[in-house]
Parts: sequence; structure tokens; C-alpha cells
Amino acid sequence: MAIGFNVAIVGATGAVGNEFLRLFEERNFPIASLRLLASARSVGQTATYKGETLTIQEAKPDSFEGIDFAFFSAGASRSRNLVPAAVEAGAIVIDNSSAFRMDPRVPLVVPEVNGNLVDGISRVYAVPNCTAIILLVAVNPLRELGEIERLVVSTYQSASGGGAKVMNELIEETAHEIGALRGLPAEGAKSEKVLPHPYAFNLFSHNTPVNEFGYNEEEWKVIEESRKILDLPELRINVTCVRVPVLRAHSESVTIEFAGEAPSEEQVREALSRAPGVRIVDDRESNTFPMPILASGQGDVLVGRIRKDLSHPSAISMFIAGDQLLKGAALNAVQIAEMVINVGQPYRDEQFV
Amino acid sequence: MAIGFNVAIVGATGAVGNEFLRLFEERNFPIASLRLLASARSVGQTATYKGETLTIQEAKPDSFEGIDFAFFSAGASRSRNLVPAAVEAGAIVIDNSSAFRMDPRVPLVVPEVNGNLVDGISRVYAVPNCTAIILLVAVNPLRELGEIERLVVSTYQSASGGGAKVMNELIEETAHEIGALRGLPAEGAKSEKVLPHPYAFNLFSHNTPVNEFGYNEEEWKVIEESRKILDLPELRINVTCVRVPVLRAHSESVTIEFAGEAPSEEQVREALSRAPGVRIVDDRESNTFPMPILASGQGDVLVGRIRKDLSHPSAISMFIAGDQLLKGAALNAVQIAEMVINVGQPYRDEQFV
Repeated sequence: MAIGFNVAIVGATGAVGNEFLRLFEERNFPIASLRLLASARSVGQTATYKGETLTIQEAKPDSFEGIDFAFFSAGASRSRNLVPAAVEAGAIVIDNSSAFRMDPRVPLVVPEVNGNLVDGISRVYAVPNCTAIILLVAVNPLRELGEIERLVVSTYQSASGGGAKVMNELIEETAHEIGALRGLPAEGAKSEKVLPHPYAFNLFSHNTPVNEFGYNEEEWKVIEESRKILDLPELRINVTCVRVPVLRAHSESVTIEFAGEAPSEEQVREALSRAPGVRIVDDRESNTFPMPILASGQGDVLVGRIRKDLSHPSAISMFIAGDQLLKGAALNAVQIAEMVINVGQPYRDEQFV
Repeated sequence: MAIGFNVAIVGATGAVGNEFLRLFEERNFPIASLRLLASARSVGQTATYKGETLTIQEAKPDSFEGIDFAFFSAGASRSRNLVPAAVEAGAIVIDNSSAFRMDPRVPLVVPEVNGNLVDGISRVYAVPNCTAIILLVAVNPLRELGEIERLVVSTYQSASGGGAKVMNELIEETAHEIGALRGLPAEGAKSEKVLPHPYAFNLFSHNTPVNEFGYNEEEWKVIEESRKILDLPELRINVTCVRVPVLRAHSESVTIEFAGEAPSEEQVREALSRAPGVRIVDDRESNTFPMPILASGQGDVLVGRIRKDLSHPSAISMFIAGDQLLKGAALNAVQIAEMVINVGQPYRDEQFV
């Protein structure tokens, strides 16, 4: 392998883990060695990186010896258990889970929004909730046009947010349902259901616990994390998170209320066209706007349906879509690592070429 | 057949037409004779009503001789062409299309909201847009709690809104896509596509023309029709209409801003629990809220996720779902006809039992 960093992925067999491998190749991430870690039951499985077959090892506190960058994407409880050991071993951790996001010591980073927080000193960086990342890549560029007072958001979230198992559940359950609709004998296994509700041709309020205010955990993350990332602790956010039968891109219907006069549609388009990580897809003539099928596999967040909100004197509405596994997770994490490298204060100087 | 009215259905072979036949049986609609009409290419097809096989005839201006009630569900241009002939022939028309909805002479009726407009005098009643009906059944009961100032709505609309062909397109395209995902040879015909975009595991902004303000036709209908039905010509409505890969129920994420103080969550629940046509599905413990699978085949609009909007001093948010073919179309039409009958001024007295 090339000269570079010793990298570990925790959760290497998951949907996000897969994307890490693809992105490392695609972006030529400077890797000297790659250690794939996962839970005990995945030990012995293999994955391919640049033509080499790598064997999955169990993620344990002593797995991080010599590691420079550890990418975690195996859920909050595993991060809580293992991130301290990785830091102790000298790694810089990029954590996709919610474990440390609201920890005031941990930078919660969307590079396009608050990349300035990547300082080469922090040992743990948190990747925000996918819905929040996709929202903020599209909303942050509008802050130059006026003070944002309130966001009203309804989401259309894909199966990938629940991981590979839920993506598979959507496919198998849908195959089963199509068989039933056609009057054919049952096809597709309906066992091993992760979600609490039928998913085929259905949708439901996000399946996370609902708090005393009537907001579910996903919505609460979007509210709290957006405020932290934008450094607007009082920002008013209304969000309704809904899971729809889509495989891997989240969409969001967003209304942005400004404190003063609303910017013109033209100003919004202009600001978004200059914004990093944003692609405008807004063709009224052909009725082409952001949709999951266009966002899937893309690093950019797509923005369209840009229009004045006719119901409010100073609001703008738009519809956005972004790949949940890429910008919503793996890509955002890799971008943070690349920024750490570029900041020029990597953890181990001797590891630089 | 029993003593009752001579009834015609225009669009008898469509998805809504089917529901009419089912509802007439289920509700014992007083039918003396039933004439099934459709376009020329459906002539000769048959349908079953109370065990009798009825043959589809072509819908023409002279098809309405002797008809008391004509239910139209065959698109706006057919309604524009044939409704005048039906009225001329003496029928009372209940029109599911958009042709006459905004005509000031035509009552646009959701029985639970403005059933008082059913006066036994009007000869044409319009059934509102499905998204507007489902929205207003849930929103209207809250008017007793305060003056509604603004609605912010994002929709999750099903295939049935585009008719039987689009429902079939969703199923066939999804079967095809599942085959591709599994690496199997292509299965399912992808021909005869009605929609402009892929639908399997995808979603997109409603596929109707977009006007100069950036709103599509569906959204414009919701805005204009809601104002007419509620008799609130200045009501501020923000709406984003999105088609999701669901078969037959529309869902909507709704925020209601009040002019004065917001009602409490308890007051909202209480008002909705007394409201006709509404069923509260709002179990935070089990995470069970309105979803298409619960709404499909039901006459009621399901309402849940009832909560204070924490981003606004006097707003309430909720999530609703209703069967697009039933309350969004056929059921609302039959209810109007039943009200016409009950008003006691039917067109032909001699036809009463």
C-alpha cells in the first residue's frame, strides 16, 4: 500500500462502511494500511479495497494500536464504548454516531458550513445527523442574504438511514407485497423485521422514541444539531421526520423565514449557485426537481422548487435531496479527515510522505 | 333493482369508478337503475353491482336521459364536455374533476366542512381536490379554537391520485427495479409510462405544470380550493406537493398557525375527537401515527403527531393521512349525493319510495 495513514473503519460491514471503501479509492485518500473492524459476528467476512481482500476483525478496545484515523459508523453505544480507546491509542476519530455530537468539546462538522472548526487539535470530530447535514448544506448559503429566523421542515427519509438491514427489508417486503397484489404465492422473506411498521408502499413517522414535547429523537437531533452547527442556539426549527419507501437518499421540504425582508428568488439562486456542495436542479419547464434517484450516488445536495413562500412576507421555500450514505454520512466524514490532513497539523508528523 | 334513483357513473372503469360501485353497495345508496359510462375504448367491458353484470356504454351527450344523479370522475375535459348535457337532461351532477370547482355558481363541498351548501337547488356540485379534502377534514375542526392565520403543508401523495394506470405503473416499475437490484433479468413491463419520472423507490415534486410563482397546479388547487371551502379568501397557505411511492392514501405534514394564542394540545385533541370524519391515531408509546396502510380503505381522515410547534408561539403541528380514492374522491361524492337526498328537495319527487 502507498505511504499515508493507518486507517481503521469500525462498522466496516455496514451500508456506510461500504461507502467508506468506495470513497477512499475514488478520492485517493492517503492510506498506508487499512483495518476493517466490526462486531464479533462479522469476523472473518471480507471486503475489497484497491483489489486487495481484507478480512474483518472484531472491534475491541485494543484494535486501535498504531491507527491514525478511526472512522466510526457502528451506532452510538459502540462509539461510546470504543472511541475513548481509539483516542487513547492515538487515533483521530471521525464518529458518524450521535454519541458525542452534543458534547461541547467535540466539533460537530459539516465542512461546507463550519469547516473552520477543523483545527488539527481536536481528537474527536462528530459527523452530524444525516437529515441535519443535508438541510444545512442547502440552508447555510442563504445566511448571507439575511438573518434566518425560523425553519419549517418536513422530511422524506430513505431506508438507508436505518442501515443495510432496513434497505433489504424494504426490498424484500416490497417484493412480497407485489406478489400479494398480483395474487401470486408469497415471495420474499418477511422475517427479521427491523422496523415497527410495514414499509412496502407505506410511510410512517420516524421510528425513534417520542419525547414529552411530541417530537421524536430524529427531529430533536435535527433541531439541536442544526443550532450547534450554525452556532445559532436560539434558531427556531419545526421539523417533522418521516420515513418513505426510498432506498438511499433523503429529501426535505424546507421553508426558510427571514427576520427582515426576504431575499428575491434570484438572490437565492445566485447564493446557492456559488455554494460548495450544492447543485441546483430546478427546471420548471420539464418539471425536474431534486429527487432521490438524482441524488443517489452524488456528493452534492440537490436544491430546487426555489420560490417565494406566498403565505409569508419574508419566506422562501425549496425542496432538497441528498444521498444519505454519502453526504449524510461517509462523504462528510472523509471530508473532515481530509481537512484535518490539510490543516497541516496531523497527529503524527513522521507519517507524512 | 330497488326503488330509488337512476344513477350514472362517468368514468366507471377508473380507480374512482370502482370505488363508487363498492360504496353504493356498502352504503345501500338508493339506486333504481345504474348506467356505467366511460370512453369509447372501454365500451363492452363489464362491471358487477349487487351481483348483476353491467356493460360499459360510451359517455356521450345523450347518455343522461332519465338520470337523476350523474357522478363524474373522468377528468376535467370530459366534465367540461358532458356535464352541461347531463344537467340539461335533468340530472344532478356530482363532479370529481377540477372543471367547475372554482366556478362561483358551483358549491365546492366537503360535507364535514361546508355541507350547509348542499341546498337541493344546485344542479352541479364539485368534489374538491383530494389533498384539499383530506387537509380540511382535519383542519376545519380547529377553527373553533381560534382564528387560523396560516397553514404550512408538505404532502406525501399516492399513486392513486393519477388513477389506476399510475398505480399499475408503480407496481410494475417496482417489480422491475427489484429484479434489477437482485441482478435478475428484467421483469415487469416498463412501457406505457404515464409519469415523467421513475417512480419505483423514488419520489418527485407533483407532476403538474408549474406557474409563474413557482407553484405547481396541484398546489394551486389546494390553495384556491381551501380558501373557497373554508370561506376564508385571504387564508395564507404554503403547500409543497410531492408524489411518493405509495398506492392509495395521501399523507400530509401540517402546521397550523393561529392569529391569537395557540390552543393547547389537549384542546386540539378534544376538538378533533368530536369532529366528523376524523379518527385520532396518535400513540407516542408504540410510535403509531397516521400512515397510508392504516388509512387505505377507511372513510375517516387519520390525524396524529399532534404537538405544539416549538418554533412558533401559536402554532400546532400534526400529521394526517386519508384514502385518496375514498374520502379524497368517491366517498366525498356519495356523501354529497346522500345530503342532496336528505335535504328533501330531490329533483324528481315521484322517484321517492
